[in-house]
Amino acid sequence: MSSLTKSSFWNKPNGEGDMKKIATIHTDFPTKFGIPRQSGLVEELKGRVVFEPEFRSPDAIRGLDGFSHLWLLWKFNTPENSGSLTVRPPKLGGNVRMGVFATRSPFRPNNIGLSCVRLEKIDGADLIVSGADLMDGTEIVDIKPYVPYADCHPEAVGGFSKDGSERLEVVFSDELKSKIPENKQAALIKVLELDPRPQYQDDPERIYGFGFAGYDVRFTVNGGILTVREIEKFTFC
Amino acid sequence: MSSLTKSSFWNKPNGEGDMKKIATIHTDFPTKFGIPRQSGLVEELKGRVVFEPEFRSPDAIRGLDGFSHLWLLWKFNTPENSGSLTVRPPKLGGNVRMGVFATRSPFRPNNIGLSCVRLEKIDGADLIVSGADLMDGTEIVDIKPYVPYADCHPEAVGGFSKDGSERLEVVFSDELKSKIPENKQAALIKVLELDPRPQYQDDPERIYGFGFAGYDVRFTVNGGILTVREIEKFTFC
Repeated sequence: MSSLTKSSFWNKPNGEGDMKKIATIHTDFPTKFGIPRQSGLVEELKGRVVFEPEFRSPDAIRGLDGFSHLWLLWKFNTPENSGSLTVRPPKLGGNVRMGVFATRSPFRPNNIGLSCVRLEKIDGADLIVSGADLMDGTEIVDIKPYVPYADCHPEAVGGFSKDGSERLEVVFSDELKSKIPENKQAALIKVLELDPRPQYQDDPERIYGFGFAGYDVRFTVNGGILTVREIEKFTFC
Repeated sequence: MSSLTKSSFWNKPNGEGDMKKIATIHTDFPTKFGIPRQSGLVEELKGRVVFEPEFRSPDAIRGLDGFSHLWLLWKFNTPENSGSLTVRPPKLGGNVRMGVFATRSPFRPNNIGLSCVRLEKIDGADLIVSGADLMDGTEIVDIKPYVPYADCHPEAVGGFSKDGSERLEVVFSDELKSKIPENKQAALIKVLELDPRPQYQDDPERIYGFGFAGYDVRFTVNGGILTVREIEKFTFC
């Protein structure tokens, strides 16, 4: 059933023109590495939603302060799509294929992501949100209020998705910890607990790294223990 | 702050080309009239999701049967957009303006709707869903599994949205009721209880009507009581 692998229909021109950008979100993740796999896993992660000039008005968000949670609809930064109808969810170890519509994978016919975030506050014309699983600079195409009676289903069964309850133990010396601002420490530790290594990798000798809040974070993982090895101020070239 | 009312940027060409259709949903509502205002309000409403040929494959939905609920992302049938940053939610009586991003109104910069439905079963290559608030023939642009740990927030506060707990009492004679198939009766009664009248209207003499499951349903409303007046087989011209 893989006859569609190279369908030209799938490979749409990238971005421009198909969906209107209404805002940009700014987060602590300069790349996709380290980003939690779903929204809400790390409540300490803060993001700032900055509206485009034409939507940057108190009118556009009037009444939003009465809601605790929001939906962000956003554009995946997936430059192209292989056209496969199946994907390999990282949660399943990366070897089992599931249907694209049975996963939240970014490799899908229309590159729209869906994330529930908490609205922390409205700061001037910006929204401060928490729990976002988005890369810095991600384009937002819609914001909708989370309506509990329609969106909240405690009885829902989650298929093969897990709540990510397995966590690594993080060893993080006070000396290294002191290199990053105090208000970023809790978020970083929780991100590390979620195991930010790329899938299919389990080499205790290897040093992994990712950018977070303007810092380059280096670590190793041995068994269930993640040890932070280096924290350096990050400079974009 | 309404200087953007006539922004040409807002008025995008209608539909074609901006988002790829992956499926069509078939429901009992031939028009927008009578459709509940959010998904999940009438669980008895069934819909059939029919995939486009290139996505009509067991591969594309492999693993979906493990989930009880789905997100449908779909295209609003709003031919044009006034460009206003505020809308008047029917729930507030239609006279109060709220920001477009504080409501689920269809009049928004990108015409994407978001509905949570229950997956009843997979019927061949089609999905049978319940609780859908969509018009017959609505284009689906994405289907994502409902992931409880990321999507379900029982602590969420719902702003001015209400759970629609006010219901009309429906008077529906056995004679009229017998004109529609038995398996459609419960859904119709619940749709009527939700008060399908257009907003701003409260005339006890007036006969209202809408199409449902191939029938034309006529009724009056006096106080909190809705009386079904006529049920006729509906024929499209």
